[in-house]
Amino acid sequence: MDGAEVAKMLLDEINPENIRENLRQLTKKPHLAGTEADKEMADYVKSVWDTQGMETTRIVPYDVLLSYPDPEKPNLITILNSDGTDYFQSQPEESKLDEGDKHNDTVFPFNAYAPAGVVEGELVYVNYARAEDFKQLEDLGVNASGKIVIARYGKIFRGDKENQAWLRGAKGLILYSDPADYAIEGSSSVYPDSWYMPPSGIQRGTVFRPMGDPLTPGYPATETAFREKYEDSELPNIPVQPIGYGDAIHILREMAGDAAPDEWSGGLNVTYKLGPGLVNNRNIKLDVNNRLQRNTTFNIIGTITGSLEPDRYVMIGNHHDAWVFGAVDPSSGTAVLLELSRVMTKLVMEVNPAPLWMCPVKIFLASLVKSIISSALQANGALAVTIVFCSWGAEEYGLIGSTEWVEEFTRPLVERAVAYINIDIAVQGNFTFRGKATPNLYNALYDATKAVPDAPFEGHSSNVYDTWLRRMKDNNLNVPYISNVGSGSDYAVLLSRLGVPAVDLRYTYDPASGLAGYPLYHSMYETFYLVNDILDPSFEYHRVIARVCAELARNLADSLILPFKASDYAFKMRRSLDGPDGLKEAYEEKMATRGLSFDAIDIALNYFTAAGQALEAKILHKRYGDSPFAVRKVNDQLMLMERAFIDPQGLPNRPLVRHIVFAPSSKDGYFGDTFPGIMDLMYDIENGMDNDSKWAELEKHMSVIAFTIQSAANTLVEVGELHARP
Amino acid sequence: MDGAEVAKMLLDEINPENIRENLRQLTKKPHLAGTEADKEMADYVKSVWDTQGMETTRIVPYDVLLSYPDPEKPNLITILNSDGTDYFQSQPEESKLDEGDKHNDTVFPFNAYAPAGVVEGELVYVNYARAEDFKQLEDLGVNASGKIVIARYGKIFRGDKENQAWLRGAKGLILYSDPADYAIEGSSSVYPDSWYMPPSGIQRGTVFRPMGDPLTPGYPATETAFREKYEDSELPNIPVQPIGYGDAIHILREMAGDAAPDEWSGGLNVTYKLGPGLVNNRNIKLDVNNRLQRNTTFNIIGTITGSLEPDRYVMIGNHHDAWVFGAVDPSSGTAVLLELSRVMTKLVMEVNPAPLWMCPVKIFLASLVKSIISSALQANGALAVTIVFCSWGAEEYGLIGSTEWVEEFTRPLVERAVAYINIDIAVQGNFTFRGKATPNLYNALYDATKAVPDAPFEGHSSNVYDTWLRRMKDNNLNVPYISNVGSGSDYAVLLSRLGVPAVDLRYTYDPASGLAGYPLYHSMYETFYLVNDILDPSFEYHRVIARVCAELARNLADSLILPFKASDYAFKMRRSLDGPDGLKEAYEEKMATRGLSFDAIDIALNYFTAAGQALEAKILHKRYGDSPFAVRKVNDQLMLMERAFIDPQGLPNRPLVRHIVFAPSSKDGYFGDTFPGIMDLMYDIENGMDNDSKWAELEKHMSVIAFTIQSAANTLVEVGELHARP
Repeated sequence: MDGAEVAKMLLDEINPENIRENLRQLTKKPHLAGTEADKEMADYVKSVWDTQGMETTRIVPYDVLLSYPDPEKPNLITILNSDGTDYFQSQPEESKLDEGDKHNDTVFPFNAYAPAGVVEGELVYVNYARAEDFKQLEDLGVNASGKIVIARYGKIFRGDKENQAWLRGAKGLILYSDPADYAIEGSSSVYPDSWYMPPSGIQRGTVFRPMGDPLTPGYPATETAFREKYEDSELPNIPVQPIGYGDAIHILREMAGDAAPDEWSGGLNVTYKLGPGLVNNRNIKLDVNNRLQRNTTFNIIGTITGSLEPDRYVMIGNHHDAWVFGAVDPSSGTAVLLELSRVMTKLVMEVNPAPLWMCPVKIFLASLVKSIISSALQANGALAVTIVFCSWGAEEYGLIGSTEWVEEFTRPLVERAVAYINIDIAVQGNFTFRGKATPNLYNALYDATKAVPDAPFEGHSSNVYDTWLRRMKDNNLNVPYISNVGSGSDYAVLLSRLGVPAVDLRYTYDPASGLAGYPLYHSMYETFYLVNDILDPSFEYHRVIARVCAELARNLADSLILPFKASDYAFKMRRSLDGPDGLKEAYEEKMATRGLSFDAIDIALNYFTAAGQALEAKILHKRYGDSPFAVRKVNDQLMLMERAFIDPQGLPNRPLVRHIVFAPSSKDGYFGDTFPGIMDLMYDIENGMDNDSKWAELEKHMSVIAFTIQSAANTLVEVGELHARP
Repeated sequence: MDGAEVAKMLLDEINPENIRENLRQLTKKPHLAGTEADKEMADYVKSVWDTQGMETTRIVPYDVLLSYPDPEKPNLITILNSDGTDYFQSQPEESKLDEGDKHNDTVFPFNAYAPAGVVEGELVYVNYARAEDFKQLEDLGVNASGKIVIARYGKIFRGDKENQAWLRGAKGLILYSDPADYAIEGSSSVYPDSWYMPPSGIQRGTVFRPMGDPLTPGYPATETAFREKYEDSELPNIPVQPIGYGDAIHILREMAGDAAPDEWSGGLNVTYKLGPGLVNNRNIKLDVNNRLQRNTTFNIIGTITGSLEPDRYVMIGNHHDAWVFGAVDPSSGTAVLLELSRVMTKLVMEVNPAPLWMCPVKIFLASLVKSIISSALQANGALAVTIVFCSWGAEEYGLIGSTEWVEEFTRPLVERAVAYINIDIAVQGNFTFRGKATPNLYNALYDATKAVPDAPFEGHSSNVYDTWLRRMKDNNLNVPYISNVGSGSDYAVLLSRLGVPAVDLRYTYDPASGLAGYPLYHSMYETFYLVNDILDPSFEYHRVIARVCAELARNLADSLILPFKASDYAFKMRRSLDGPDGLKEAYEEKMATRGLSFDAIDIALNYFTAAGQALEAKILHKRYGDSPFAVRKVNDQLMLMERAFIDPQGLPNRPLVRHIVFAPSSKDGYFGDTFPGIMDLMYDIENGMDNDSKWAELEKHMSVIAFTIQSAANTLVEVGELHARP
């Protein structure tokens, strides 16, 4: 059996009906992190894997700090008359709209980790609560300091909204979902008639910005771990509460002050005003009763040990905790994961005791390696490398399960992880496949999507790649657009702390639709009904994601030489410097006034580029040597190249975010910056910190970038040349 | 040819006469770091290697901050009469005592990086200027604050003397070599009649405590590196100057105050007094004119690329810079290094094109691996793994060349370095071989010394090990004593920053002699004459060191499975906790008063111990698998285990010292602490910082230690078990 046959077996075996049934099981009740149902979910995933024949399965618990609303005392927003009496009060919870929407265990809408507190005062509307919104607001003469602010969801991670509001001195934050962002066809067509947000729908979500357990930064939250005091942690600072637009309209229509700029106006039938304050001397009161609670979260880790290189890991992960039913986030991904694990374990079992699975290329291409590998396989049978399935806990609170586990197993992961494939939401629309990835994986991702048929519906091409290329073309390039890996899901810590190449797979809606996300995101209405009846009734889009993941994993596990491309990495870095909207265009002139330039970075990047090209030429012409050790050597160079972008000293002012080239933006955790340190420091310089010490920080960081790129190049050059320099 | 034959070839080929001639060449003139002669030395080493047939040789420069005395204006110590006139002035330089002692380029005696300054005032005698000396001084009612202090050399690293003096508020420090520590047979027998320090001899040396270039901590001092400002660096704070005991006696005999405690009295014929002050209202003046200067230092790196695993490095290093002639420090080591490189390159060339060298064990023991390896060798010929020869620059200033190079090549070294063998001073006496090492290497070092004949002189056993065991037995154990790796030489950064197993080899004098070091250390009298006529006329002790290094390198490069022993590591850690003078004995009781215990560390250590034993049992019974990948897997586990003790966040208050188990002591850089973080924090607690925040630091650090030991265990357990926990 050769690689193509193995690939075909995998693709053929993936069954959308299984994914549907998985999803039905997974969404029967809410399974919020730290609850009894969450533990049941962990047990369920483990039992499924055990039944499927997974080689090892383990539940790995962490004792972490979580946050819950008071079940007796919902968080409320009240408009107070000038005499102190209530004028209006927000709904404590979402309305039941369809069979199966509501369950006794549905958690009240809240923003996790927002501190408890009652604040009262004037209201200011701050659009999306981005840094630029607050700046514009100040230019308009409105100061948010000492006020309660109301912002619409969208554009950036909500934790950064809290942070921006706090930085500007706001004492409370109200978040709501505006129809312009979540119900673009208006109230005529909303859930349960469509996938749009109904007036009562509320987006839950964390406002904690760092990754992992708040009390154990940098170390795993095991029993014996040291816990920081609350006041030493980076917990959010001001009360925050989300509401639906059915409530928001009552508040917004009462606002005083000037009309907001046109582009700040949402889809509600009111005149959006900035404030400060409400008409008739009314005030707003924000009453948040959230409680912090140490609780256990569970990761489930399943492995199929590789027979040839058991110490090389291809990881596939998805989280299992959900705000409520989580039919889209994350159970669409969990449903796919469980089908993937079934197919992979089945194949391994079936080909045993003639276990050629996942090794054919290694066998047939490498003549010298052949006899050794055959012997090894005949002795053991199984996969060439170890496949690690990860079902993460408490992702919704801040990527907590994955971060703690990665912190605990940093050493083996740094040494052995080939790549991490993430599926969080598998399907949030039916427009096109989309990927986020480190450039190392661009090529492998393109190859996988070329090998997988797209969903068989009108408007879709015969393979995933073609639809993707047509519907989401990268500007100026004839390839589909792949965005950077930020911190929206569990890939974050693997890439940004450890330098493990990471990719995130999803089927999505049309980005031109203007939606801020799929509309029912984190609401109670993320139900099985939503997916089964509205979003993907055939589960064909789910099948696409499962197949792309299977083919990508196969390629990573199966190729004699890893399909990583340093040249793509080089190109991406070069483009982010020199390309349109690149760093040079943005900052070069201003930097020159301080005598700073990109010269050293340019030189290092040219060296890296040449080193990558030289290595790839060697691989292309099979001039990497002819022993298993030579194969391992070149694979180690490829695998460890991304690690070289990790600086143990971390990014400026973010010691635990260590990837110098790609990291979550400080201004929007969902977004992945390229050269984040430059972005952050130039932001500071351009926003009130244009001083010697900040410029010195930038100068130092730019020398660190040049050094780090050179370090990565040193991983790629011929291994005897460890004294190379540009 | 099997392993034993290869070993024999190596040992037979090493020729003491070559080492003698090497040393003669190397010591012709002073070769201080950053001088023209230093560059000539670098060129010389490179040319020797090129002539020998080294595969690649490169000179790798760094632009670093060095320190020199003013050649026009020597540093002086003056006793001033109460009317301000001079009563006594120290000698600006050492006296010429023998042909070849003195050269025009001899640098004035000075302490590198001690700031320039003129300070004047009362004098206080502080014995060795250790923390405990200052404490005792305070108990005796004498305060060093605002005073100039005089201390004798010995016991601890001189940089820590400066630091202690500065911490206690002293405004200047005079260092001298007391006969009790450096001329124990008295003035009747000193250089050039013996190896003891003459009255005019002065020990130079750095007082910079961190490792590497002071201006580029953590990053290589390349052209584009960012330089810290002087005031942000960790440069020494107070003027310091060394003098000989010929001068010191004039100062000490003038001192006022109470007599010093008996054990503070040295070997001079005066009554040692504490001060403060001198008799007759005389004062002391310290006039230091040192200058900081950016300068180039050069490392020379030579490699013999391995044919089988070129991406595995066995490193052998020695520095080439010297304070003056450096016949002992470091040229005795350089002379050995150049003979080693000759022998190794010669063997490689001779066995080509039948290049079995260094691979026989791999070939003959691993039946499955055999054909592959043979083919690989026949194709390329050469060594199994890459041997990296390192000739470091500017070691004397603070391990600068090695640290900068390690900082530049951190990534490839972390990924590929098997071990680092250091030879600084090769021979400083004729009593016994001695080693410093990480426990990983204890066993390999014992094996190497068993395989090498000792010097053929009376009192010496037939092999190195037996003499060593007899003359330097480890208390309570029937093995020779191996001390911890501190920061006395270039191994420091490799072990304490990167976690590369390191070993230091030396032939030494009798530690019971009471000497603080070999007497002429860092003086002008470290001449070829000293070594050739007094210390090792036959160069047999030099041969021993060369042979032990060759055999150790062969074993590390040649064994099918690396000869690392996690069980020795476990035992060493356990002993440092539970053994006599262990951490529990010292601190357990006091910790209990704060609810702290060693329980979590004990549990992790037991787990580590079991994991190490299980792996070693597998290796013993050859149950590690039967493919080259399986061999590589287990070797990676062994090689990378020590890396797992590295915490990127570093030790408490020492972010760039990252090895949790072994690090240079904060109180004496020469000494290697076990669990240095506990030592430091308990020291603080017991010396005035017994407060909640310090105890919290300790509690956190102890949880980090437990976690880190667990991390190391995770490297050892079966690679599929990455979710293991005790």
